[in-house]
Amino acid sequence: MHASDAVFHDRAILPRGFACASRNVGLKPTAKDLALFASETDAAAVGVFTRNHFPGAPVILGRETIRGGRLRGIIVNSKVSNVATGERGLENARRMAAAAAAELGTTPDRIIVSSTGVIGVPLPIDKIVRGVRGMAAELQPDPLIGAEGIMTTDTYAKALSASVGEATITWVAKGSGMIAPNMATMLSYIFTDAALDTPVLDGILRQAVDVSFNMLSVDNDTSTSDTCLLMANGLAGPVAEEAFRAALTAGSIRMTEMLARDGEGAEHLLRATVRGAADDREARRIARAIVDSPLIKTMVHGADPNVGRILMAIGKCFDCTIRPAATDAWVNGHRVVRGGERVEFDEGTVRKALATEVVDLEVALGVGDAAATAYGCDLTEGYIEENAAYYSS
Amino acid sequence: MHASDAVFHDRAILPRGFACASRNVGLKPTAKDLALFASETDAAAVGVFTRNHFPGAPVILGRETIRGGRLRGIIVNSKVSNVATGERGLENARRMAAAAAAELGTTPDRIIVSSTGVIGVPLPIDKIVRGVRGMAAELQPDPLIGAEGIMTTDTYAKALSASVGEATITWVAKGSGMIAPNMATMLSYIFTDAALDTPVLDGILRQAVDVSFNMLSVDNDTSTSDTCLLMANGLAGPVAEEAFRAALTAGSIRMTEMLARDGEGAEHLLRATVRGAADDREARRIARAIVDSPLIKTMVHGADPNVGRILMAIGKCFDCTIRPAATDAWVNGHRVVRGGERVEFDEGTVRKALATEVVDLEVALGVGDAAATAYGCDLTEGYIEENAAYYSS
Repeated sequence: MHASDAVFHDRAILPRGFACASRNVGLKPTAKDLALFASETDAAAVGVFTRNHFPGAPVILGRETIRGGRLRGIIVNSKVSNVATGERGLENARRMAAAAAAELGTTPDRIIVSSTGVIGVPLPIDKIVRGVRGMAAELQPDPLIGAEGIMTTDTYAKALSASVGEATITWVAKGSGMIAPNMATMLSYIFTDAALDTPVLDGILRQAVDVSFNMLSVDNDTSTSDTCLLMANGLAGPVAEEAFRAALTAGSIRMTEMLARDGEGAEHLLRATVRGAADDREARRIARAIVDSPLIKTMVHGADPNVGRILMAIGKCFDCTIRPAATDAWVNGHRVVRGGERVEFDEGTVRKALATEVVDLEVALGVGDAAATAYGCDLTEGYIEENAAYYSS
Repeated sequence: MHASDAVFHDRAILPRGFACASRNVGLKPTAKDLALFASETDAAAVGVFTRNHFPGAPVILGRETIRGGRLRGIIVNSKVSNVATGERGLENARRMAAAAAAELGTTPDRIIVSSTGVIGVPLPIDKIVRGVRGMAAELQPDPLIGAEGIMTTDTYAKALSASVGEATITWVAKGSGMIAPNMATMLSYIFTDAALDTPVLDGILRQAVDVSFNMLSVDNDTSTSDTCLLMANGLAGPVAEEAFRAALTAGSIRMTEMLARDGEGAEHLLRATVRGAADDREARRIARAIVDSPLIKTMVHGADPNVGRILMAIGKCFDCTIRPAATDAWVNGHRVVRGGERVEFDEGTVRKALATEVVDLEVALGVGDAAATAYGCDLTEGYIEENAAYYSS
């Protein structure tokens, strides 16, 4: 659906003019907990933030900052999210922006702040303000260094880059839990040296997010900190807009799949594609219902061919148009449902398909022409272990 | 909220004129798998069924049967749900009704059929037709005998009874997984010897279900088989309508709590009460979002006072009116949030509150006057174990 001419790199690198650094500043015992991303010149910048009614202080401040449309850097801490912390939280977010601005030789209105971690705990701002000093001297072009500083329960640092003509696009993200559409619990920073105007970037970012990060669900819980930013410093000059749009979308989907596959406790990437829906809203709603269903997620976890659950998940979308007699479904290409009825299939084959790392559930509704894909993962004991003691550990 | 003068019995008993029996007829290796409930005379009857777009054959047939407004009996099998089985499934449901009707000396249009278990597998109808023979001779008044025959992953048989004046109301239900509002995966049969007209019964049942079974969620998955029936044979004569209404609601809530507490793998009953919402829809939506949130469910499982997650769950109800500065929250009466901010609290106390068998999360939104309570349970490794191999085991 999103064919692109983007060439993905074997090893991610930041676009020209961008660099990053990360450190342990004492929020976590030893792991990296602070990351700085910087452009050597002001970059055009756009962003989308969580729709949660309790946005964290960094999101409240970030919405204000992004209106300027220009950024020099991003400062991110992990471990504490600075959410539900009131006026003091907002003050701490401003102090964090000011500290990063001083370090990069710019003004606080050119800095976006993100915080990720436990909700409702005061931000250890003094450690951060002290910790950021000297980071400008450590900036270097490997995006994985920055990615390492923003991890919470991710099992590995995530970065990705692609070329579009002369320009590079690089994605750095973290995910793992509290991940659901609009946005995922997710911090996702996209850097490019392509030269594009802010309004164009904004349209491209929103379109890409719509079919990628916003179709990701690890657990149907929406974080209070979700942030997706796109910075374009223009150092590579103009690019073909359509090629850029296609590449941005393709890379965002690829990163979404990485985040889904690394969902808390996950052992499989679960992809649900719905075709033949009445309209986009219904296609998206049903695709999400499938990847969100605990009974489907546990079925994939156990490679248990209990495929009738696919019909259950479609059918619980009460407000969508469903024609049981026109409904078909496949698991990794093996047909399991025809006309709303389970077909006879070889159980060993379907069991094997469910045991592969990427499980594609496809549904054809036979109602209209709309299609959508949602991204999720299986539900395992690991998710429960991580989340039954996340605060305490 | 639903004060009632109903007197609940220590030991459940069926109302006069009702009796039940159950057997193993070979669908399961040794456990009971077929139950028959009967009234000695035709009873006024009403029912509500799943809203899933893929209702099972018994639900399709049941909607037709219940229009007659009179029932003599209910026949239920467990293990196979007879869903997504097409024309043959419907034929099998009709044969099942006919077999029970013959056994009870009535006509098939006086019998409701239910099936619960795996989706998409043909019903072993011959075993059922043979198995029902002779069950009329075994009918007796202990509702637990019938309850035993309808269990799937329930850990114990569930029945409850109460007196309202001279009349008795008795609930028999099964729940456990694939449980979500509208309706829960749930078979719930309510029997009474009160004399009430069908239209009155219908209004009372819908009102009771609305605040009880429809506010239950074990996993936010909605079964294709959900059925709640109310049969009133009138043998105790007329009752005060309002007292009956209150008792029916109180008992349905009590049964809902039993089902939630016995959700698959559950160790806690989780009750979320939302006050001060803009309207009923929003109160219900937010209460459900809280009991459905995997991060809240795992927090309760781990007795981990990560209470910021309550704000996350409220805040992800994008379409509701939320005033962060007016939002308060309590865990079993201990305040944890004031004005949208986490307050300082004694962690040991809240940890202990979360470790009790019944965990009440209360939220005051400060927006309007509407209130609602939703019922759920914690999310444990046990849920995953049961559902990763349900089909195969």
